Amino acid sequence: MDEHVLVERDGETVRITMNRPKRRNSLSFEHLSELLAAFRSAGDSPATGIVLGGAGPVFSAGHDFADVAARDLTGVRELLRLCTELMGTIQSVPQVVVARVHGLATAAGCQLVASCDLAVAAESAGFALPGGKGGWFCHTPAVPVARSIGRKRLMELVLTGDPVDAATALDWGLVNRVVPDASLDEAVDELLARATRGSRASKAIGKQTIYAQLDRPEADAYAIALEVMASASQLPGAREGMAAFLDKRRPEWPD
Amino acid sequence: MDEHVLVERDGETVRITMNRPKRRNSLSFEHLSELLAAFRSAGDSPATGIVLGGAGPVFSAGHDFADVAARDLTGVRELLRLCTELMGTIQSVPQVVVARVHGLATAAGCQLVASCDLAVAAESAGFALPGGKGGWFCHTPAVPVARSIGRKRLMELVLTGDPVDAATALDWGLVNRVVPDASLDEAVDELLARATRGSRASKAIGKQTIYAQLDRPEADAYAIALEVMASASQLPGAREGMAAFLDKRRPEWPD
Amino acid sequence: MDEHVLVERDGETVRITMNRPKRRNSLSFEHLSELLAAFRSAGDSPATGIVLGGAGPVFSAGHDFADVAARDLTGVRELLRLCTELMGTIQSVPQVVVARVHGLATAAGCQLVASCDLAVAAESAGFALPGGKGGWFCHTPAVPVARSIGRKRLMELVLTGDPVDAATALDWGLVNRVVPDASLDEAVDELLARATRGSRASKAIGKQTIYAQLDRPEADAYAIALEVMASASQLPGAREGMAAFLDKRRPEWPD
Repeated sequence: MDEHVLVERDGETVRITMNRPKRRNSLSFEHLSELLAAFRSAGDSPATGIVLGGAGPVFSAGHDFADVAARDLTGVRELLRLCTELMGTIQSVPQVVVARVHGLATAAGCQLVASCDLAVAAESAGFALPGGKGGWFCHTPAVPVARSIGRKRLMELVLTGDPVDAATALDWGLVNRVVPDASLDEAVDELLARATRGSRASKAIGKQTIYAQLDRPEADAYAIALEVMASASQLPGAREGMAAFLDKRRPEWPD
Repeated sequence: MDEHVLVERDGETVRITMNRPKRRNSLSFEHLSELLAAFRSAGDSPATGIVLGGAGPVFSAGHDFADVAARDLTGVRELLRLCTELMGTIQSVPQVVVARVHGLATAAGCQLVASCDLAVAAESAGFALPGGKGGWFCHTPAVPVARSIGRKRLMELVLTGDPVDAATALDWGLVNRVVPDASLDEAVDELLARATRGSRASKAIGKQTIYAQLDRPEADAYAIALEVMASASQLPGAREGMAAFLDKRRPEWPD
Repeated sequence: MDEHVLVERDGETVRITMNRPKRRNSLSFEHLSELLAAFRSAGDSPATGIVLGGAGPVFSAGHDFADVAARDLTGVRELLRLCTELMGTIQSVPQVVVARVHGLATAAGCQLVASCDLAVAAESAGFALPGGKGGWFCHTPAVPVARSIGRKRLMELVLTGDPVDAATALDWGLVNRVVPDASLDEAVDELLARATRGSRASKAIGKQTIYAQLDRPEADAYAIALEVMASASQLPGAREGMAAFLDKRRPEWPD
């Protein structure tokens, strides 16, 4: 089954590793299918966090041209629908998802980084949307990247196609941390540990509501967030959190 | 009447100070009600600027759990509607509103900072959306914060719940200035003085139109801004400004 | 015909220069008309890049008050419609458009910088939306500037009206590069060369699709980008790019 993806359960964390190193973890239809299945399975599990990484020299080189070149319009649309479903699933699973980025994150590989909730990069990592200097523009990768960095920086990435280094990605807000290559796993685990504290049910609703309210006029966003927050105040986790605060004791999360 | 809020008129400026220091300026229903009344009253006054600050050790700790814990769903919704109305009122009053931030601005306190037009922070200030590491996620505080900083940084704030320092808030664009603690009032007044020059009527329409056009597709934003700007060209302030420029004299604002 | 605008074809590049130096390249109706005609003509040409610059001491001072002051509401609306059409045309032409910014870019001049795909600034350049400290607020210039920089920074620009220097504009993401004044042309050409590689048809669709998907909820943006990307996979440029990659040869772009 899992030819292209390694899935490891490690305590509260599910580690999903793209494992086509010889193809630079490029995202063939089969690879995307396995990634989607892995995220769905992890999403249904009691884990609190998911780490997405890549085996071999790079994080991911994006779509697999050998796969794309063989497809007609209907076939490419099918491939891109699967890819977009994966990106949406990363945002809709209840777990916190952290991208562990080393080497290069290119095209749909860079889209994966932008789609994860959080991202930690090795100092030597690079990020690129190279379609613009080739023949197939990075239209869909640009969607989440545009929602993570400023407009002029997005235009530079998509028009030049050249990579930016990890320090630039940090300055632009595409990643949360840049650390020495040897500290990458440690930094991922440290950030994930801090991001997975508290009531699990509360955090799951929180993450999903953030994605629902983004990119909308502020009044529309409040219409969503206010109703969710009012409802969420009655959940066991919220009740326990407030009671523990008022009683000056440590909370015990019921969910 | 004003049990929790101090209001001081100081020349052209109204200074509104949250004054529940023993409760860390937490935002109970009564406190929010008084803040809303204070902003409405200042909004109706001829003042040109409003400064929002907090008395005691922190700016504001956000909602008052003693108040929230006692409420059912309908009651919490009522509380959050009041809170959201305050945030909208800060954006709709004709004055320039500057947040004067010291200590911690937490949860709905951080939401207040994001909702003010401008913000100046003391070096020792901190900013947090801590609900995510507890049991009640910061859904509504995340709305204006998401519209001030990048997505990955927002996710880090809401998922980890940990505070960021003032320098980080400046780097991320959540505040306009960070100054030594002893210079906070001076820096607030300096920025407010520069932000309140010119025609009062023109600036009021300007501020309100900015909030109307944000978060929309660019063509929709232009549809709003273009019509307002055309109309505004016929107002006395615009006429005087252009005439003074062309006559090479200092303008005298009629409004 | 071209009283106010210089147009020079230079290899694959069209250089459009605002040439009203004595009026600080202010944007009278006639000047805007000529700029629009120049961009339309360049857009219809086989060029791959457009550089927009200004002759004389500044890039552009924005609208010409001598022109505006003489107009009634209908007349100003006509002027602003023309101006907005120019901004939209810069984004819809198939070429990569780079702003070459020196001196000051003020009001609608700053709007031009924000509307170009990319921008390179001389170290001594400044950027301002000064209407807020006068009588006619910079409503329409704020539209693309708001979509390039953070909200608090936008509010500071529009409310204070004071200029920010080139280093600040770079930090905020309003421009892509800041270089010594003497290196401005070289830096513009270097960035443009990198931004105009690859299939021309692919890049044109890419640029236009970026502007179509921005400022929308992510799912709406994907609905646009996915369909365009699927269709674009069947174009000659995409086919050639993938074939060349798989054959390990240099591509020859058919368009």
